[in-house]
Amino acid sequence: MSTLNPRITAVRTLDLRFPTSRFHIGSDAVNKDPDYSAAYCILETDTGLEGHGLTFTLGRGTELCVMAVNYLSRFLVGRTLSDITANMAAWVQELTGDTQFRWLGPEKGVIHLAAAALVNAVWDLWARAEGKPVWRLLADLSPEQIVACIDFRYITDALTPEEALEILRRNEPTKRDRIAQLLQSGLPAYTTSVGWFGFSDDKIRNLCQQALSEGWTHFKLKVGGDAADDLRRGHIVREEIGWDHKLMVDANQKWDVGQAIDRTRQLAELDLWWMEEPTSPDDILGHRRIRQETNVRIATGEHCQSKVMFKQLLQAEAIDVCQIDSCRVAGVNENLAIILMAAKFGIPVCPHAGGVGLCEYVQHLSAFDFIWAGASLQDRVVEYVDHLHEHFLTPVQIQRGRYMLPQTAGFSIEIYPESLREYEFPSGTYWLSPEAQQTATPK
Amino acid sequence: MSTLNPRITAVRTLDLRFPTSRFHIGSDAVNKDPDYSAAYCILETDTGLEGHGLTFTLGRGTELCVMAVNYLSRFLVGRTLSDITANMAAWVQELTGDTQFRWLGPEKGVIHLAAAALVNAVWDLWARAEGKPVWRLLADLSPEQIVACIDFRYITDALTPEEALEILRRNEPTKRDRIAQLLQSGLPAYTTSVGWFGFSDDKIRNLCQQALSEGWTHFKLKVGGDAADDLRRGHIVREEIGWDHKLMVDANQKWDVGQAIDRTRQLAELDLWWMEEPTSPDDILGHRRIRQETNVRIATGEHCQSKVMFKQLLQAEAIDVCQIDSCRVAGVNENLAIILMAAKFGIPVCPHAGGVGLCEYVQHLSAFDFIWAGASLQDRVVEYVDHLHEHFLTPVQIQRGRYMLPQTAGFSIEIYPESLREYEFPSGTYWLSPEAQQTATPK
Repeated sequence: MSTLNPRITAVRTLDLRFPTSRFHIGSDAVNKDPDYSAAYCILETDTGLEGHGLTFTLGRGTELCVMAVNYLSRFLVGRTLSDITANMAAWVQELTGDTQFRWLGPEKGVIHLAAAALVNAVWDLWARAEGKPVWRLLADLSPEQIVACIDFRYITDALTPEEALEILRRNEPTKRDRIAQLLQSGLPAYTTSVGWFGFSDDKIRNLCQQALSEGWTHFKLKVGGDAADDLRRGHIVREEIGWDHKLMVDANQKWDVGQAIDRTRQLAELDLWWMEEPTSPDDILGHRRIRQETNVRIATGEHCQSKVMFKQLLQAEAIDVCQIDSCRVAGVNENLAIILMAAKFGIPVCPHAGGVGLCEYVQHLSAFDFIWAGASLQDRVVEYVDHLHEHFLTPVQIQRGRYMLPQTAGFSIEIYPESLREYEFPSGTYWLSPEAQQTATPK
Repeated sequence: MSTLNPRITAVRTLDLRFPTSRFHIGSDAVNKDPDYSAAYCILETDTGLEGHGLTFTLGRGTELCVMAVNYLSRFLVGRTLSDITANMAAWVQELTGDTQFRWLGPEKGVIHLAAAALVNAVWDLWARAEGKPVWRLLADLSPEQIVACIDFRYITDALTPEEALEILRRNEPTKRDRIAQLLQSGLPAYTTSVGWFGFSDDKIRNLCQQALSEGWTHFKLKVGGDAADDLRRGHIVREEIGWDHKLMVDANQKWDVGQAIDRTRQLAELDLWWMEEPTSPDDILGHRRIRQETNVRIATGEHCQSKVMFKQLLQAEAIDVCQIDSCRVAGVNENLAIILMAAKFGIPVCPHAGGVGLCEYVQHLSAFDFIWAGASLQDRVVEYVDHLHEHFLTPVQIQRGRYMLPQTAGFSIEIYPESLREYEFPSGTYWLSPEAQQTATPK
């Protein structure tokens, strides 16, 4: 399949932490002081070609993901790329089904975040070996090859391999048109950069004005504080962006179900395009009830641990917007399953992004959705957050509120060696500096 | 509240692994080679009193739980016992809500298993300070004190503090009678030791005969292999135990939903008392469908990650048997919430046990259920597995298939120092022995 078939000889891992909490970047009602971080890995091969991958974290605890990546690297080292890609579903089952290790999940939390870093690194390596960006590699696979990437275990009651194949084959004849459309005008996006929780009213106004001038049409605001304060901040955003643009709010799991219903009803006067994470990300039935009792479109997914949970959110008609995350589940392969399930259930996929590297990742997944699965841009927007892109060799390209697709081979995730040296924790030059020593949260 | 109020000065942690996989102990359709293990912790205090706790694991990956326990110990060290117990719900929220660390869950997998070890260690310390076993400490708390131990976040749509208080107050006048009954005749139990997956037919027959002679009346068999083989092994057990005794089967998450329905219907000819873990532990709606379409009683819980998931299993009427685990959720406090929810929904609690230390732990929780919550022994049985008890200072006491309650102060979980020295991984004397070096699975 590949022109190049490198053998993986080692996996290097790094604990990478950016001190974003110092500027209230990423602050919300629950995540008050995130230091955007990553367990970063580099697959080294006998050809010199590398595969880079990461899983996104918030600072403390990143060391656990690094340790789990180190453990799971045994399922890669010594294998050639085609050993893995020839039957990728079987390989993913090995990676997530280790008979002792799976007790710690299964398929959730630390060990699943770690699996994501490695799975995504394999896709980076594969795409580089093919000389294509990951979205193009996916576009060029056959329906049968795509289905062979998916571990259907525990989801066949919602999507069988035959049903997945049917969706893919139905979209195949028209995929060239959609690829051309993507290359010309990109993927629609929205910005979360205007309304972090820790921002002052003036800062929100200024950021709204700036975003409008850059062409943004969809804006997200963090809520989940004092009720009156949430509404006041919402009206500030509405004053700036007007009522024709879309406004979404995000409570980051702040409320119990009953409270979420009350607060969502109150906020509905802001004409919400969606309410995001109103309660526990694990509460499928709670989301269903909030949706039924508020008539506001409900979105969740960035903390949805696996395809089994997404399956139930769809089966229960609990969500209107499916927010996949490139690292929370086990990388590309599991996301292909989720995207195809969402297509079957007719629910739009609007990926979670931001943090570090998530924007770079998800553009490839949304392109897959448009080319092969949902096959529509209606109600689809990719999250965009304007931080930390400077550390990437091939950062996302945003034009007038749209992601323009990358043309470079790989998964767009490689971080500059200088940035790795500066922000590796705790030994990087930033973390050893007097400034960091004074302000760092304890490890 | 306490006569003694020790201050926690340090938390010692150990990675403890027993080589059970060498004897097929604990083997099932999914967990083929478990090395029963634990992240073990010792709270050291300024009074010399210690609190011991553990979280159960299957071998590889235990190091992740140890590392997470080390991280979370910051929420204990420097505090007095009463600092923690005076408002335990608030303390549990701190432990599980660390603004950066919670990204790795929240409240699931590695970090939640680690929280369990620490929470349970605090209960051990508290009970020792009071000079009582944990079950008696719980029995002697007031309804208000019990409610103050529970973090109701995300479950108020199923159980409010007021409803919990009502259940407790309703049972208070009669609790003395139930305590007397427990002291006299103990808790009913069942044995899983007869039917591990790796056991030969002859071994199963011999173990059934032995268990019958010891007074057991409830037996569990592992299934999830070849369909004909499962049935054949089931009939072997029925031949030995007859049709008046209860037989349960456990598929350990082996099947997809559709397959689980087919296989459960086939196995129903064995007159099943319950079918356990027929599919993914995360599939609430799947369990509901299996229950509805087979008419076999459905049990699950040992892999149920949190009170939010148990809440939904109850709300969805997905289970007939609630199998709490003492370490999978964050210890005693979260289990109090789950037991009270089960009582409200009228579902019997039959704890998961076995492994290492789980039998020692769960007897205290089932006693709480009988004294304060479910207030009945009807359809309640505690799992019993006959391995590794020799390592505990106060192992469970089984008489004629019943758990006789412990009288020693604490949580019954302290392991002999010699056992800790022998089985600490990888530096313990067992793991350094030539025998272990030859047969150990790679770390």
